Amino acid sequence: MEANAVVRRMEQQLEASGETTLDRFRRGWARLQEVDGEAGARVVAGLADLAPDLGRYIIEFAFGDVYVRPGPDLRSREIATVAMLAALGNARPQLELHLHGALNVGCDRDEIVELLIQVAIYAGFPAALNALAAARKVFAERKVRGV
Amino acid sequence: MEANAVVRRMEQQLEASGETTLDRFRRGWARLQEVDGEAGARVVAGLADLAPDLGRYIIEFAFGDVYVRPGPDLRSREIATVAMLAALGNARPQLELHLHGALNVGCDRDEIVELLIQVAIYAGFPAALNALAAARKVFAERKVRGV
Amino acid sequence: MEANAVVRRMEQQLEASGETTLDRFRRGWARLQEVDGEAGARVVAGLADLAPDLGRYIIEFAFGDVYVRPGPDLRSREIATVAMLAALGNARPQLELHLHGALNVGCDRDEIVELLIQVAIYAGFPAALNALAAARKVFAERKVRGV
Amino acid sequence: MEANAVVRRMEQQLEASGETTLDRFRRGWARLQEVDGEAGARVVAGLADLAPDLGRYIIEFAFGDVYVRPGPDLRSREIATVAMLAALGNARPQLELHLHGALNVGCDRDEIVELLIQVAIYAGFPAALNALAAARKVFAERKVRGV
Amino acid sequence: MEANAVVRRMEQQLEASGETTLDRFRRGWARLQEVDGEAGARVVAGLADLAPDLGRYIIEFAFGDVYVRPGPDLRSREIATVAMLAALGNARPQLELHLHGALNVGCDRDEIVELLIQVAIYAGFPAALNALAAARKVFAERKVRGV
Amino acid sequence: MEANAVVRRMEQQLEASGETTLDRFRRGWARLQEVDGEAGARVVAGLADLAPDLGRYIIEFAFGDVYVRPGPDLRSREIATVAMLAALGNARPQLELHLHGALNVGCDRDEIVELLIQVAIYAGFPAALNALAAARKVFAERKVRGV
Repeated sequence: MEANAVVRRMEQQLEASGETTLDRFRRGWARLQEVDGEAGARVVAGLADLAPDLGRYIIEFAFGDVYVRPGPDLRSREIATVAMLAALGNARPQLELHLHGALNVGCDRDEIVELLIQVAIYAGFPAALNALAAARKVFAERKVRGV
Repeated sequence: MEANAVVRRMEQQLEASGETTLDRFRRGWARLQEVDGEAGARVVAGLADLAPDLGRYIIEFAFGDVYVRPGPDLRSREIATVAMLAALGNARPQLELHLHGALNVGCDRDEIVELLIQVAIYAGFPAALNALAAARKVFAERKVRGV
Repeated sequence: MEANAVVRRMEQQLEASGETTLDRFRRGWARLQEVDGEAGARVVAGLADLAPDLGRYIIEFAFGDVYVRPGPDLRSREIATVAMLAALGNARPQLELHLHGALNVGCDRDEIVELLIQVAIYAGFPAALNALAAARKVFAERKVRGV
Repeated sequence: MEANAVVRRMEQQLEASGETTLDRFRRGWARLQEVDGEAGARVVAGLADLAPDLGRYIIEFAFGDVYVRPGPDLRSREIATVAMLAALGNARPQLELHLHGALNVGCDRDEIVELLIQVAIYAGFPAALNALAAARKVFAERKVRGV
Repeated sequence: MEANAVVRRMEQQLEASGETTLDRFRRGWARLQEVDGEAGARVVAGLADLAPDLGRYIIEFAFGDVYVRPGPDLRSREIATVAMLAALGNARPQLELHLHGALNVGCDRDEIVELLIQVAIYAGFPAALNALAAARKVFAERKVRGV
Repeated sequence: MEANAVVRRMEQQLEASGETTLDRFRRGWARLQEVDGEAGARVVAGLADLAPDLGRYIIEFAFGDVYVRPGPDLRSREIATVAMLAALGNARPQLELHLHGALNVGCDRDEIVELLIQVAIYAGFPAALNALAAARKVFAERKVRGV
């Protein structure tokens, strides 16, 4: 389809929906808490000094736009996120956050360990080993907190 | 646990199991066909000239050891693999293969598109866009073949 | 600051602003055209079949939220983007798009070539060489179009 | 060659060889100790709580299948591994392990330093600098242990 | 142009210029100090034990050849470097060094924060978040030192 | 050692050596031809239109400074380079060039295939498969040329 037609239709849909950024924010904040719990809130609060709007975009875009979409359930979404972060291998704090997230939305420990073993096939054994080290830490944190 | 004790126990278990490489190969070949169909077989056949044993390791290790493990179902495994390959962004042929794989084991098109949109959050919009281009090609191939 | 206080303040600001997604969309569409011209519109149109909302998020989030923020001028933003895509080395279509973008917002060819030479220091000579190959193509396209 | 023919021939060879997983495990364990010494054993033991089979796959596949193959000597293999891990830049623990490995199988310190300098050409100066920091730590550990 | 002709012309130009490695070294050392200040000097000094020539190449090639070239001013060069290192996400010490560098050559804190927010679009939110954590540390160091 | 002392000593050594950029260029050009043959010359010539100095830096720095250093022989250097480029997975033209290079300086085909199989352990099977595809092409090119 021609670009102008695509854009005009999007404008019409957005006008009809009347969606505000506040709507997206509230929807995203609820979803973020459901997935990441307190730790997700801490990420947003931790940005308040330096880049509060990046925290807001995480709520509005990542959780208010994307994570609320129909289709994959939250368990599938967290499996995908954990797999991506483990494969990239350069985002340890976010991997830990989403290992908690995966457990929060219904993955169990054994399933996560299995998926991290699978990382070895596609991103190499070092990526799998380092992701398992993150998982060990996350599992221990939850044991201490009695989750 | 001390390394020698760990290793000794593994040896005892392997001795008890009597598992042969042929067992692993047959198990892996069945699983590879289930996940990747003909396209997976083509990868193995395509290695026959240069590195047949790498094809054999894909069958034996990736599919005969890992993809047969209990825990995540094949749908979850393929979601993780597609997510990893999309995020890494440097493995287009394998991404296409596993987009077929994901569809073969029960993911539907919409779900895959949703997960590729989610790639934008963790690996950036270019990675998501390029993965969607791979998905467009795979969906078209399947339409032609009437799958 | 405590997370709930941060979030409450954001809600109040969003409520006061009354910003709608349509506002963001219009702002982003104008900015996208300014930076990427027709080629940016083609990316959005090209997503209409498969993932129209990803095109919408590029407009709303990338251009309507981020590229309109105060601070760095568009030239600085495009220098950063070209540098990132050249260094990552796995996003050729997007690198070409933003090489056009950089030229659209006031970078000249020599300056871009200089920055791509600098890529060799931080991401290696192959990344620099491949980015220069993209630049050669983009410069030729613009010559043909008489830009 | 056609896939089924390739697979049938592999099955016949595996049947003829009678190789068991225990054979691979023993071969791999010997090779792992030769290359990585005690530190390699610690990696396997460290996985015993969470993912013992990943440790087993390192022994069986990485060392029992691949590192025992004819062709490159162990020195060449460790040069390749150190170079890969230095270039990827996101696998520090494994880089340290294989810097020890390279020294264990006959590389000398000067040669390793030279190869890490070469990393700057292909993966950038930061990758080379961070790999040299890993090498400095490994050299110091060996001095303390009098190796 | 044919390779031999290109090479012959380069030789003639170098012969005419009479440039020595000492010229490049002095030029580079001045530029390195201008950009990275004391911290750059520390990188070079820190290599003196293990790979002094890598420190020399940073001075001669990175700063004596590349950073002195005409075209982009130092502010643009540091914007590009910070963006690359933030996007790659595996070079934290060098990112910190160049965040100092960017501030040394005229970027202000707000501008850097804005560019790091932009990283989220092209390399994902984790890369942006981790780069902002580096920026927080660098800003605090400068506050302590009263810069 | 203190930075100023390190730098002063380097200056003295460079002054004593009297090395010119022309010396480095000639040394590097000879080494580049030895390693990469005609294909290396083509890379330099191909940069003559857009970034001739990047071609010059490849000759002067990569080959005139680094590849001429004592220590690893050229075979070891090319093993490291091929391994790095295969693991990074985003530098296909340079991987092909250095596969030729490795064969030019004494690696044989079987040895290269073995090392590319090993890539699967550290960077995943997709990286190994894609590097083998590059090797297949390079081996065929050499067969045609009768090398």
